[in-house]
Amino acid sequence: MKKLVNRPENVVEEMLSGMVLAHPDYVRKLDGFNVLVRRESPVEKKVALVSGGGSGHEPSHGGYVGYGMLDAAIAGDVFTSPTPDPIYEAIKAVDGGAGVLLIVKNYTGDIMNFEMAKDMAEIDGCQVEYVVVNDDVAVENSTYTAGRRGIAGTVFVHKIAGAKAEIGASLEEVKVTAQKVIDNVRSMGMALSPCIVPAAGKANFTLAEDEMEIGMGIHGEPGTHKDTLKTADEITAQLVNKILEDMQLLDGDEVAVMINGLASTPLMELYIVNRRVHEILSSKGIKIYKTFVGEFMTSLEMAGCSVSVLELDEELKELLNASADTPAFKLL
Amino acid sequence: MKKLVNRPENVVEEMLSGMVLAHPDYVRKLDGFNVLVRRESPVEKKVALVSGGGSGHEPSHGGYVGYGMLDAAIAGDVFTSPTPDPIYEAIKAVDGGAGVLLIVKNYTGDIMNFEMAKDMAEIDGCQVEYVVVNDDVAVENSTYTAGRRGIAGTVFVHKIAGAKAEIGASLEEVKVTAQKVIDNVRSMGMALSPCIVPAAGKANFTLAEDEMEIGMGIHGEPGTHKDTLKTADEITAQLVNKILEDMQLLDGDEVAVMINGLASTPLMELYIVNRRVHEILSSKGIKIYKTFVGEFMTSLEMAGCSVSVLELDEELKELLNASADTPAFKLL
Repeated sequence: MKKLVNRPENVVEEMLSGMVLAHPDYVRKLDGFNVLVRRESPVEKKVALVSGGGSGHEPSHGGYVGYGMLDAAIAGDVFTSPTPDPIYEAIKAVDGGAGVLLIVKNYTGDIMNFEMAKDMAEIDGCQVEYVVVNDDVAVENSTYTAGRRGIAGTVFVHKIAGAKAEIGASLEEVKVTAQKVIDNVRSMGMALSPCIVPAAGKANFTLAEDEMEIGMGIHGEPGTHKDTLKTADEITAQLVNKILEDMQLLDGDEVAVMINGLASTPLMELYIVNRRVHEILSSKGIKIYKTFVGEFMTSLEMAGCSVSVLELDEELKELLNASADTPAFKLL
Repeated sequence: MKKLVNRPENVVEEMLSGMVLAHPDYVRKLDGFNVLVRRESPVEKKVALVSGGGSGHEPSHGGYVGYGMLDAAIAGDVFTSPTPDPIYEAIKAVDGGAGVLLIVKNYTGDIMNFEMAKDMAEIDGCQVEYVVVNDDVAVENSTYTAGRRGIAGTVFVHKIAGAKAEIGASLEEVKVTAQKVIDNVRSMGMALSPCIVPAAGKANFTLAEDEMEIGMGIHGEPGTHKDTLKTADEITAQLVNKILEDMQLLDGDEVAVMINGLASTPLMELYIVNRRVHEILSSKGIKIYKTFVGEFMTSLEMAGCSVSVLELDEELKELLNASADTPAFKLL
C-alpha cells in the first residue's frame, strides 16, 4: 500500500486537521467530532445545509463547506457512514433557526444514520428535512444500496440548494429545489483501477491490465460489466448514452455537465472526455450551459471518471451561476 | 497503459479542445497553434503574462489563463518544450501595448525556445522580458536542466505577477515582482510511482513496491535518493527541512504554503501532509499566512506531492490576496 499516511486508523482525523489548518477562513471543526462547519455557523435565519458520508471522496463533502453551499459536513471513517451522533451535533451547530436540510447520498447506512440524527434533533425542537441523491444510472441496486447510488451529481445539489438557501428561501423551498436537482441529474462512472482503503491495506477489487469496469460505484461497487479497455471516445459514448436513455432531453434543452475525476485520472484525460461529451450532446441539439471538469467526488486513488448531466430550467441556471466560496468550489 | 485517451499523438490537441469547450468564458485557442489566450485578449495597456511548457502538468499552465493570472499559455507536446513559433504567436496575440512578461520554468529546452520567441517578437517591436523559475531545492542540475528545476512554485509567480499586472504596473515593475517571488520561493517533491508518457506507453522509471523517490522532478527526473517508504510525517519533514535549509526564515516571518498533488495522490493524503507542514513551521515560529492544497502542477498520473514555501512581505501578501478568476484558480 503506497500512501502518504501515518497510522491508517488516524487518516480521517489527520485529514480534518489538515483541512482546518489550510482553510481557517472557511471552516472549523466541532470539538470531539469529525464534523466541519462554516466558521461563522450558525448563520441566523438561513436554512442550513448538512451533508456528509464516508471519507475517501474528498473534496466531498468538507471541501464544500462555505458560502453558497454547505453549512456542515460530517466525515465518517473511510467508505463508512458516520454514526448518528456527529450528524446530530452538526445539525445542532448550524441550525440558525430556519431549519436544516440534510443532503444524503443513497446508501443504506447513510440513510439510516442521517434519519436517526434527524429524529434526535427534532426532539430538541429543530426543524429538519432531508433529500436523498440517487443520480447513478448504472445499476438499480448495489452492494450498499437499495435503488440507485448517489455519486458526483450530489455536488450539483450542494451548489444549487446552497444558493437557494443563501437568498433566504424557506426550508420547504430549499427542499423543493434540492429535489428538483435530484430529479434532473443523472451520472455514470467507470474505473480503470481499484483503490485501497487504508485500514484494509489491499485493493478492493481487481482489473486486468487491459480491463476496465463500466458503471463502477465510488466505493468500488460492481458496475454493469467489465470490458476491454476502449478509447476515451468510445468509453465516453457508453457513459453518455446510458445517461441520456434515462433522461427526456429534447433538441434545445439546456444542461450543465460535470466531468469528475475519481482521483488518479489526470486532468488532461478528463478534458479529452469532456470534448467527446460536448460533441455527443451538441450533435443532439442539447445546449451545454455550464461545464465543470475536475475532482469533485473521488474514490481514494481510483483511476477513472464519471459524467453527470443536469437538465436546467431558469431557476436552476440562476442558482447554478450564483457565487459560491468554499475551499473546493469557488464561483465569482 | 491505462489511460482515457484516443490516439496518443492527439492528446494535447484533444485536451485543449476539451478545455475551450469547458471554459469558453475564460479562454480561446489560437487558430493553428496549441495556445490558450484570455478570451478578451489583448487587454489594452495591461502588461501581458505568458507561460507554458510541456503538457502533462495540468492545470499548468492553461488552467491559469484568466483574470489576475496569465494572458496566454503555450502547450507543448507531453513533457516537451513548445517550439518558438507558438510562443511567438502567443506573445503577439496578447500584447496590449504595455509589453509582455514570459514566465519560464528552468528547463534547457524551454529557455531556448522562449528566448528565441522573445527575439522574434522584439523584431516586430514588442517589448518582451522574461523570468526563469527555479524553485526546486532537490538537486542543482538535472536531466533537462542546468541549475535548479522549476516546479510548483511557478504557480505563485503566475498569481502574484498576474495581480501586479492587473493593477496597472509597468513591465519592469511586474518583472521585479515576479523575480521577488522567484527569489523567495522554494519547493521540493517526492514520488510514490512513475508516470507514463502516452506516446511512450510505458513508465518513465521504476520504484519497488516499498520504495519512493525523494526530490523527484515533475518529468520523472531523478531526485536526491530512493528510500524505503516512510510515514507521511517523516516524508513531510524530509521535504520541509530541506526547503528550510535553503531559506533564511526567522521566528515571526510569514509564508504561504502550497501542498501540490502530482496527480494520483488523493486530497486526503495532501491534507495529512499539510497538517505536518503546519506543525513543523509553527514549531519554528514561522507564521503561515495562506495555504493552498490541491493539484496545481501535476506529472501525468504520477503519485506523490511537492511542498512549496514562499516567504512573504507586505507587497506579496497583498498581491497573493488579490482576486483571481481562472479555470483552475479562483480567489474571491
